[in-house]
Amino acid sequence: MVKIVIDTLGSDNGYKPSVEGSIKAINELDDLSLVLVGKIDELEEELSNYSYDKNRITLLDSKQIITNHDHPVEAIITKKESSMVVGLNYLKTDEEAMGLLTASSTGALLVGSTIILGRMLHLRPALATLLPNSKGTMSVLMDCGANIDSTPEMMLSYGLMGSALYKAYYLKDNPTVALLSNGSEEGKGNTLVKESYKLLKESKLNFIGNAEGTDALDGEKDVIVSDGFSGNVFLKTVEGAAKAVIKDCFKYAKMENNKEFAKLGQKLAFDYDLTSRGGAILIGTNKVVMKGHGNANIDTWYNCIKICYKLIKNNIIENIRNNVEEGTR
Amino acid sequence: MVKIVIDTLGSDNGYKPSVEGSIKAINELDDLSLVLVGKIDELEEELSNYSYDKNRITLLDSKQIITNHDHPVEAIITKKESSMVVGLNYLKTDEEAMGLLTASSTGALLVGSTIILGRMLHLRPALATLLPNSKGTMSVLMDCGANIDSTPEMMLSYGLMGSALYKAYYLKDNPTVALLSNGSEEGKGNTLVKESYKLLKESKLNFIGNAEGTDALDGEKDVIVSDGFSGNVFLKTVEGAAKAVIKDCFKYAKMENNKEFAKLGQKLAFDYDLTSRGGAILIGTNKVVMKGHGNANIDTWYNCIKICYKLIKNNIIENIRNNVEEGTR
Repeated sequence: MVKIVIDTLGSDNGYKPSVEGSIKAINELDDLSLVLVGKIDELEEELSNYSYDKNRITLLDSKQIITNHDHPVEAIITKKESSMVVGLNYLKTDEEAMGLLTASSTGALLVGSTIILGRMLHLRPALATLLPNSKGTMSVLMDCGANIDSTPEMMLSYGLMGSALYKAYYLKDNPTVALLSNGSEEGKGNTLVKESYKLLKESKLNFIGNAEGTDALDGEKDVIVSDGFSGNVFLKTVEGAAKAVIKDCFKYAKMENNKEFAKLGQKLAFDYDLTSRGGAILIGTNKVVMKGHGNANIDTWYNCIKICYKLIKNNIIENIRNNVEEGTR
Repeated sequence: MVKIVIDTLGSDNGYKPSVEGSIKAINELDDLSLVLVGKIDELEEELSNYSYDKNRITLLDSKQIITNHDHPVEAIITKKESSMVVGLNYLKTDEEAMGLLTASSTGALLVGSTIILGRMLHLRPALATLLPNSKGTMSVLMDCGANIDSTPEMMLSYGLMGSALYKAYYLKDNPTVALLSNGSEEGKGNTLVKESYKLLKESKLNFIGNAEGTDALDGEKDVIVSDGFSGNVFLKTVEGAAKAVIKDCFKYAKMENNKEFAKLGQKLAFDYDLTSRGGAILIGTNKVVMKGHGNANIDTWYNCIKICYKLIKNNIIENIRNNVEEGTR
């Protein structure tokens, strides 16, 4: 059985999409069990609308919410009864539970996971995102915003963790690892990138050099390493630029009264809907923690549960430990 | 008369597109005169194919080429007869000449301009790019790759120079200035961004806070300030993401055998063809220097000449000097 904890509070869209996404996943995956943390009355009422295997959904009561307005450290320390803290404590103590999903504050999740679950080895936990690439597969971007100021050693750890994540997700040995930079040649980059290049090159990773914004998502780079600042800029720029182009599809559809243009716009909007596709995966602690978009819808929850389930099934934690212990030898 | 120097060598596409782009511009703008630097025999032969006002095109001979493979500093020092160095020296000494365009090495242009033309005031020259935004106008991104490692003081100067550039291009007073970051709230950003935020806020600029990759090009931000590394990542990611979406238009057109989809793809490809639209503008020296894409086509040259012409007509140099002298008072 794969057991995942769902924090149903703290999402912009309320708790209902998390419940419906959970039901969708539970009815699809026979060996999945879920622990829903939230306002138990509301959850029970909402769940009564669905038919599902009742043995595989457990409820944990919590009425306190951590929001983006809370200071991360303060929230974790003072809001002991919040759904996030209750969920993380359950995840820590329950041996079967291997993962947790939330759509609440990223900062609080980062602090809470590190404090409650503990770091794996000497790692600084960081956020990975799966991004669609031109080959029709996915590439892992890491770090996408946990560690805004990073060191070369942390950048190496993103490569090691990202590579393990990719292995666990695609069961592909020796995934390619590239470094986000301002030019493809060795020697391009800011001070951090140049130093990180050396460490990645010396490691046992399948390091293929620098990636530029133009070709990072060409499908040749399984893992893209970046500090949290540039990674976040990259991620949001992909989203922003794709949205701008798709908006133009509808602009032309209206201007030229062309229904086919709008039809194409809808297809592209579906493909590039990063919100629904999934969320960021926090790795570097002793369990798997995922952060869905604050604006998470039913598909976001459903897809996040499926990603988390797959990572747990494929032993991501063991993979990371091995990669980190062997990767730099 | 607006006099601009054209470096016809060092482009991936040879000298012909630069000549045809020059002719197109000269035949459109009555008070434009051009100085074409390159292999004089070739240029004369190519020019004989066109009809134009011969008084407004002058030729300067140079057979030596600076390429991207040359080390920038070494190239400027040793290749004294190169078209870039010959052009920059002409630009420096000729009082009428106010601008130069090249599609050769960015690094060499940066070094050459700084050494030969000299810095304006205490500025570190940096590269600005005009990017199409969601409002259908353009936004200025600065720095997009000249100074990979920047300081907060340099970031402030990008705001001051970018704002002056925007004023000179759009004749709009008090353009809005935003700072590229990983979150919109004050306090978001890496150490550099946080320090730069303070300086921009204290300045006389119309500083509106942080911009994220998702909304940087929403048209509300006239000027986007960034260090050369993140700016370059941002710029190339916009280009890469737009290309990926447009590629999908043609993929769907083929899959569903739908000619309308391909038609829309072509429209979008035209709109997002950043190569043809223009180039980067190097500001911070005593003249206006522009770098077209290495892969410059006729439209690239034509559009770059028109941008350079407009900036000179609208006194960009004076604007920058005023902005920098007054902006922080």
